[in-house]
Amino acid sequence: MPRRVFFAIAVFLFCFPMVSPLAAAPPPPSSDTEECLGCHEDIHPGIVADWRKSLHAAGPARAGKDKGKAASSVGCAECHTAREEKHRASFPHNGFSVHVDVSPADCAECHGVEAGQYSENLMSHAYGNLMGNSVYRQLINASAGPRTAPATFSAPGRDTMAETCLYCHGTNLAFNGTVTRDTDLGEMEFPVLAGWPNQGVGRVNTDGSRGSCSACHPRHGFSAAMARKPYTCKQCHEGPDVPAFKVYQASKHGNIMASSKADYAPSPWKAGTDFPAPTCAACHISETATPDGTIITERTHRINDRLSYRLFGVPYATAHPKSPDLSIIRNSQGQPLTADLSGKPAEKYLIDSAEQEARSKKMQALCLACHSGSWVAGHFARLEKSVAETNQATLSATKIMEELWARGKAKGLAAGENPFDEPPEFTWTRVFLFYANSSRFAAAMSGGGDYAVFADGRFQLNQAIAELGGLLPREPSK
Amino acid sequence: MPRRVFFAIAVFLFCFPMVSPLAAAPPPPSSDTEECLGCHEDIHPGIVADWRKSLHAAGPARAGKDKGKAASSVGCAECHTAREEKHRASFPHNGFSVHVDVSPADCAECHGVEAGQYSENLMSHAYGNLMGNSVYRQLINASAGPRTAPATFSAPGRDTMAETCLYCHGTNLAFNGTVTRDTDLGEMEFPVLAGWPNQGVGRVNTDGSRGSCSACHPRHGFSAAMARKPYTCKQCHEGPDVPAFKVYQASKHGNIMASSKADYAPSPWKAGTDFPAPTCAACHISETATPDGTIITERTHRINDRLSYRLFGVPYATAHPKSPDLSIIRNSQGQPLTADLSGKPAEKYLIDSAEQEARSKKMQALCLACHSGSWVAGHFARLEKSVAETNQATLSATKIMEELWARGKAKGLAAGENPFDEPPEFTWTRVFLFYANSSRFAAAMSGGGDYAVFADGRFQLNQAIAELGGLLPREPSK
Amino acid sequence: MPRRVFFAIAVFLFCFPMVSPLAAAPPPPSSDTEECLGCHEDIHPGIVADWRKSLHAAGPARAGKDKGKAASSVGCAECHTAREEKHRASFPHNGFSVHVDVSPADCAECHGVEAGQYSENLMSHAYGNLMGNSVYRQLINASAGPRTAPATFSAPGRDTMAETCLYCHGTNLAFNGTVTRDTDLGEMEFPVLAGWPNQGVGRVNTDGSRGSCSACHPRHGFSAAMARKPYTCKQCHEGPDVPAFKVYQASKHGNIMASSKADYAPSPWKAGTDFPAPTCAACHISETATPDGTIITERTHRINDRLSYRLFGVPYATAHPKSPDLSIIRNSQGQPLTADLSGKPAEKYLIDSAEQEARSKKMQALCLACHSGSWVAGHFARLEKSVAETNQATLSATKIMEELWARGKAKGLAAGENPFDEPPEFTWTRVFLFYANSSRFAAAMSGGGDYAVFADGRFQLNQAIAELGGLLPREPSK
Repeated sequence: MPRRVFFAIAVFLFCFPMVSPLAAAPPPPSSDTEECLGCHEDIHPGIVADWRKSLHAAGPARAGKDKGKAASSVGCAECHTAREEKHRASFPHNGFSVHVDVSPADCAECHGVEAGQYSENLMSHAYGNLMGNSVYRQLINASAGPRTAPATFSAPGRDTMAETCLYCHGTNLAFNGTVTRDTDLGEMEFPVLAGWPNQGVGRVNTDGSRGSCSACHPRHGFSAAMARKPYTCKQCHEGPDVPAFKVYQASKHGNIMASSKADYAPSPWKAGTDFPAPTCAACHISETATPDGTIITERTHRINDRLSYRLFGVPYATAHPKSPDLSIIRNSQGQPLTADLSGKPAEKYLIDSAEQEARSKKMQALCLACHSGSWVAGHFARLEKSVAETNQATLSATKIMEELWARGKAKGLAAGENPFDEPPEFTWTRVFLFYANSSRFAAAMSGGGDYAVFADGRFQLNQAIAELGGLLPREPSK
Repeated sequence: MPRRVFFAIAVFLFCFPMVSPLAAAPPPPSSDTEECLGCHEDIHPGIVADWRKSLHAAGPARAGKDKGKAASSVGCAECHTAREEKHRASFPHNGFSVHVDVSPADCAECHGVEAGQYSENLMSHAYGNLMGNSVYRQLINASAGPRTAPATFSAPGRDTMAETCLYCHGTNLAFNGTVTRDTDLGEMEFPVLAGWPNQGVGRVNTDGSRGSCSACHPRHGFSAAMARKPYTCKQCHEGPDVPAFKVYQASKHGNIMASSKADYAPSPWKAGTDFPAPTCAACHISETATPDGTIITERTHRINDRLSYRLFGVPYATAHPKSPDLSIIRNSQGQPLTADLSGKPAEKYLIDSAEQEARSKKMQALCLACHSGSWVAGHFARLEKSVAETNQATLSATKIMEELWARGKAKGLAAGENPFDEPPEFTWTRVFLFYANSSRFAAAMSGGGDYAVFADGRFQLNQAIAELGGLLPREPSK
Repeated sequence: MPRRVFFAIAVFLFCFPMVSPLAAAPPPPSSDTEECLGCHEDIHPGIVADWRKSLHAAGPARAGKDKGKAASSVGCAECHTAREEKHRASFPHNGFSVHVDVSPADCAECHGVEAGQYSENLMSHAYGNLMGNSVYRQLINASAGPRTAPATFSAPGRDTMAETCLYCHGTNLAFNGTVTRDTDLGEMEFPVLAGWPNQGVGRVNTDGSRGSCSACHPRHGFSAAMARKPYTCKQCHEGPDVPAFKVYQASKHGNIMASSKADYAPSPWKAGTDFPAPTCAACHISETATPDGTIITERTHRINDRLSYRLFGVPYATAHPKSPDLSIIRNSQGQPLTADLSGKPAEKYLIDSAEQEARSKKMQALCLACHSGSWVAGHFARLEKSVAETNQATLSATKIMEELWARGKAKGLAAGENPFDEPPEFTWTRVFLFYANSSRFAAAMSGGGDYAVFADGRFQLNQAIAELGGLLPREPSK
């Protein structure tokens, strides 16, 4: 072996670990994207840098099924000019027809399965499920509407809604004409989009599609690994109404995850080797496998697939709704709620116990990768009890509230009034929205302890019921 | 040097950093464990993968004092069949007698010092200290018992207890016979364990021992490094009653720790080189050393060793109890509390000031590794003041509560009633359980600022006292 | 090429990545510092180890503009004996005159630009801005003063203040003589410093200078990378009055940051390559650049430079004050507040709209590195609306409070009484201090959703207004 060859081998060996896995040269950007980059790499260098590190920039050759076949990477033009005729707010821009709101329908050009599943996910309907529900609208007005006097308030305006409820639920993007702006390249015309910016899970896009993939795969890195980490879910599942992230972090799963340096990137995602403890995504979405590659759970962007209950109760937790569109639900009292005020479920609109069982089984498949059957059975039996018990507590509070309404201590639905806007009504709302929900999330994720008792759990629940009861003239007969 | 040799050296050098430190081949699993793995690696692959990365799998040859002598690693059989005759719930399983609840007494077969110390740690008695305390039981019933009407509630059931208080304190595992289940390998019999799953610090095991090592060394990795991180302690020290984790995270120690990429693994654990700032474990448990290896603090699993105070006050903070069994304590009013309702400590059961001083000195040894004597003295002087001042605030609130009881505004102990279940009693409970405790934790860990004032600290404390006072017919004479 | 040379090259190549970047040998410690280390490396090994890893230990040759010229590194003596004649508490110590409180004026010997800017930063005046404000003093007394009866309280003592408000604002270090202590080296004399330890941002040092660089560059590592991470800011910006860290963590920026393994070290700090999403420092302080090195924002330790508003409202958010010394401000009612109780700003003391615009532009320069103009415009337009709307809510609450004062339901300023100490006054305080501020921070950092509504946001704001209104005999006329 000549020294030259030997030297080359040594250098190759030395360099090898830095370039592993052996990568084919990525396909170049398309000529359209090159044109975008020509200006935008100067104007928005950060976001272009983000993209350059993404699998999209590496191209389908790296990322997907068409490995080696793609002529170009997936760049600016591929997404922002896709289906331009479908987007009401597409605008002419240097010879292209561009839209700012890349939508799940655009992404579906390559990711059809995921977009299809997501369209049947409760989350994609988050805008309509909130704004199309007359009861929820009253809760919004009472809790987010600006008050000019103790009992005088209006519905929150568009900007306030975008910053509060719709930050997570998604705004309804409306095309409000165009505006001319001075730019470094002279005067240019841009669309005015009401509700922009927004990346809520149920954003209504200018092509009529629902959702925003960047809600979980943020910005231009589109990372799957990032979406698998609980910090992503935390963006919207952190408050006292849905403290899923807080509960997770205080659970043993959360402890192990916080201590891990795993990169959460490989797919399929192997239990015990690739990830040391499940994250939100592991249980609810991801394709998981055993260390030898046997699939445990199939990837789904229709999160309902593994959910037997709708734990989030307004005011009661029930079996999961059948349709992702909740605005069609009517309880026996004609309200768009999954249960009556007495707790009776609107069964016609909810999955039955066989489907509940099937969905539980799907989720439990992953539990069993690390836990025994009796462990898993014990855990889920407790969750069932917690659902029943917190629903019972909500019923106790609701009965007191109904008596307070009957006695004129507050003006509720029967009087044609907002049932959420007076002091005792806020206390009642906290019972079901904060404390019953927190207790259930703590039960669901083995994050019991603090979040089940003293941190917006049963302590506050019982205190609120006691306080509501204290507003009655006397102890109600038992 | 022939090229071949040279090449070998180069490759070795290249590979060297990946296999460092030079490891002897680990001992193989025992034949019993091999038999377990034969099935369980298929059934529960995640947990087996977790174990394969542990020091137990690497064997005592790596992990302990018998380096090089062990014939086998520490695997499934070594722990789950240990002392099988002592476990009431051991069950026949493919020729083995297996128990699911590996206990500190099992671990003591190899880790006798640690298990011995832990048995004298307050935490190992957490079940009895809670459930054997008649006053605490009333607090449990008032705050976690399901309410069917404003003032009507029962004691929480076994499942609710397992999900709330006993999630951290530990359940009392009871053997409730066996159940036959269909498995992939045919019908098999398994024990039914009430209180399972649970990993609380004071779990009462089926061999009668107390505690669960996996409370802090989770699952089958048994990592010391993980237990040294605050995320472990967070599982149970996060709520408003014991916000130790929150305070730590907002402290300068927590800031430095969050920013560090240290792996927290070496032992002894060297201040300034192995860890940049102390964690919960560093101050309370770990063996720490100077960078040159001089021991600063000795490892102890009897956490009381470095605790002069019991900061957690129900209702008052006092000197630390002598015995880890708190159920034996009686204050001068005959209650199982470390102090009277007037704040007078039950001195007979508490360590004296000389022992307090000795314990403080032990903890301060580590402080002094990075701080001057005047820094440390200043810090602990403030803590003393905060203990006194928050106890005084509790006394103020308690006097108001006693007057409210006397005036019939609530029904307390004297009337043979639960003193924690009515609205003003919840407010009083928040004073000592949430706000006084939070203020003390903030003082103890230099996490002052927000947690000492506005985040469940003195602001809420003073508000609660003012509100309690507002329930009196007039200002009490001063 | 002889084999020997070849071998050397191979080994060099192999080792190269471990020692990159090629470092000149650091300059040695000065002889004075060597003398300090002689004892203190034994006495306080942790802190010396911390320093040994710092850029100070590597010396100006590595860290600064005098690269290669420095004769010695920056060690103990360089800082703790600097300007010794200026420090009232300098004390003789083994032939040196030493002071414990290294101050910004000491650091200015090398870091003059930073110290100069910081002296004009609101934060350096945090002690006086709090303690020199008669209204704030009443808030302190009501919320942190120990209560011996419902309405009887004193001003908090020095130790309580050090542990609460002044933990962040900084203590006023007072030289209280000296004390003799037994040490390993015999009897030695040390100064007694009231207010020590403390690292608050506005600490008044014994040389009369204001601030503590170690508030953000902690201990003896003095790391810029650490200060750039949000964990540093969290120390003081976490509570319900200033929940900046919580909001950030729940924002998309916080999500991306939490998921990143960037080391936050290079300078200038390049958007998209060095940092994937901005931290507190990126927007408020740091020198940032495009990936090709073009400066986007200049480093400033005068944080006001990029702040158009003072979002933190007591009780109203206003344009940012002109001077960092807020004690000079008087509203039209003569109070040291940036606005009247009616919300009218004390315009004379506040920056005008042109300056607001200029500051916004500075901050937005970084936004535009990753976001389009319409995105940024939309975001800031919403923030303006939120400022106006939350100020309006504060006005609503204040009007109710004024009516309660007028009706004798509480005793306020007009009666010469503390306006923050009675139950309805605590509720009013929570409106502006917790809920209006939280809502604004959520708006400012796109951390909307939970923190804008249910997590101490508009829900609690509206509940508090409703509860305040419920204390009035009847609904005020509309």
